[in-house]
Amino acid sequence: LDEAAMAAAQARLDRLTKPPGSLGQLEAYAVRLAGIAGTVQARFPKKAVVVMAADHGVVEEGVSAYPAEVTPQMVRNFLTGGAAINALARLAGADVVCVDVGVAVDIDHPALVRKKVRYGTANFTKGPAMTRAEALEALCVGIEVAEELADRGYRLLATGEMGIGNTTSAAALLAAFTGDDPADCVGRGTGVNAAALARKAEAVRRALAVNRPDPHDPVDVLHKVGGLEIAALAGLMLGAAARRVPVVVDGFPASSAALVACRLAPRVKDYLFPSHQSAERGHRRLLALLGLAPPLHVDMRLGEGTGAVLAFHLLEAACRIRDEMATFADAGVSGPVVAEEAAQP
Amino acid sequence: LDEAAMAAAQARLDRLTKPPGSLGQLEAYAVRLAGIAGTVQARFPKKAVVVMAADHGVVEEGVSAYPAEVTPQMVRNFLTGGAAINALARLAGADVVCVDVGVAVDIDHPALVRKKVRYGTANFTKGPAMTRAEALEALCVGIEVAEELADRGYRLLATGEMGIGNTTSAAALLAAFTGDDPADCVGRGTGVNAAALARKAEAVRRALAVNRPDPHDPVDVLHKVGGLEIAALAGLMLGAAARRVPVVVDGFPASSAALVACRLAPRVKDYLFPSHQSAERGHRRLLALLGLAPPLHVDMRLGEGTGAVLAFHLLEAACRIRDEMATFADAGVSGPVVAEEAAQP
Repeated sequence: LDEAAMAAAQARLDRLTKPPGSLGQLEAYAVRLAGIAGTVQARFPKKAVVVMAADHGVVEEGVSAYPAEVTPQMVRNFLTGGAAINALARLAGADVVCVDVGVAVDIDHPALVRKKVRYGTANFTKGPAMTRAEALEALCVGIEVAEELADRGYRLLATGEMGIGNTTSAAALLAAFTGDDPADCVGRGTGVNAAALARKAEAVRRALAVNRPDPHDPVDVLHKVGGLEIAALAGLMLGAAARRVPVVVDGFPASSAALVACRLAPRVKDYLFPSHQSAERGHRRLLALLGLAPPLHVDMRLGEGTGAVLAFHLLEAACRIRDEMATFADAGVSGPVVAEEAAQP
Repeated sequence: LDEAAMAAAQARLDRLTKPPGSLGQLEAYAVRLAGIAGTVQARFPKKAVVVMAADHGVVEEGVSAYPAEVTPQMVRNFLTGGAAINALARLAGADVVCVDVGVAVDIDHPALVRKKVRYGTANFTKGPAMTRAEALEALCVGIEVAEELADRGYRLLATGEMGIGNTTSAAALLAAFTGDDPADCVGRGTGVNAAALARKAEAVRRALAVNRPDPHDPVDVLHKVGGLEIAALAGLMLGAAARRVPVVVDGFPASSAALVACRLAPRVKDYLFPSHQSAERGHRRLLALLGLAPPLHVDMRLGEGTGAVLAFHLLEAACRIRDEMATFADAGVSGPVVAEEAAQP
């Protein structure tokens, strides 16, 4: 991060007609965006949500309320503009970039970015979800997509995903990295009942017992119990950080990808912005591990990048504040009564 | 609320390509907005933040980091577009309506709505802040403004306020209604130090001892320890509810006004939407009393209506979801595997 740009951004914020720090996280965002862009006036003329799509072999264990066929069906819905992420991206002025990194069937659509690594993962309760080489390939897909978007002028990205069964993989990653009890890592995902929730916990427990992922080797964990879209999102974060593009992180699967990315390269965290606290149990734990405090608390549990795209608004608001407010001097507004009255940080 | 419109809105949301309820509060907002508007397709072609401005005699007790002269200075800043609320209102596509309901000096500006009830409140540590008649007059100012805006086609309002010293009045209202210890009701406001924070608690303690407000008589509490802008905001909520216009409630002073409004007419609550959890201590308590769960957690403590206007975005997002998403049938997306797999609410 560019310390000089951050100091200049902070100095500008402190001259504006408001008590110092009174805009809370919006001010922190403006400062960090300056540090990332290397200029006080960071802007996002183009922004996108990247929806990585893939299937999960573990679905055959009965861990999802929806059948795997919904993954390609929803990809088509994204491509024709009918999903929640499309509505929210239009509101945010963001493009939806949909990438097939591992859907179990082929999808034919001119707008689909085709980077399929394999046709879905294997059922990780019986062996590794994918090979180590495939996990690295999926990471590279994300890096490539980030680079292509940076080249095309995108200056702000959000993580999106589609993959029936992927909250089970996210829970397995969380349990593998932390050693937490699988029962504390799983949640209701798209809305499973108590029986399916128990099957999710059991699937995670078996996945760890069968695969024995090494928590000190992020790629080992990723290929054994991860997902192709989760790997690609981790790569997206690595690629974006390398190109100094900030990334807003969505819910539980995206946050598990953020954990992988940060374990691979801890400084990636400087480029990540939180979005929402989802209704998914393990998400809170992941956010705490990442040190991200989400600004939105709206009980969402949809995925697709919906929470991240909603949070674009807060980064935009931070930029508007920075650019449009009058200073105390310009507006002729008095400062604090006596300097000592100001609260100590 | 129109139960039929709410049921129709819920039915529409449940046909859209997402797990039922997975958009959390956005879905709840869409349903309640339908109930308020009496139609599924509630829209906000015109929206505004109403900034009620007034001064507080209690400032002479040294309870604020800023001098009282900042109130009229900031009102001029609002009128010339240089304040945080102006930047955020532009982003939201909302108008800023600034009302002088009790600034201690006269302000000459064509865009100012002049409804001054008196030149600031009296110091409520020595007697009532205003007379009962003045409190009723200030309430009526808010009702009038809501009616005028409804007549001019505004279909969504946010509460804003400007009044150096008004977090002390909000804390006094909270303590008067609840009997809570004044020390638990005050916070750092615009950023006072520990000594001033102690003076705030002491001012509230004396205000209650001197005035003995009756918690069962909201107008008694309001005239004795309230503020003119707080009274006007309570009136705004009453007037808006009467005209079926939803109101997004900002921070601590606005929430104290919401408590007054709900004590006067409990059904007003149906028309109120929360915005943010501010850094101000008593705000959390007020939100709990009101039963409002704020969607934004960004540590803001500026006032002016900034949090409420930021939250307009979430109501807009709720409407976009409702209007723009494809249904399962239209998009050819499969539903849950078996009906029983869906989580019970």
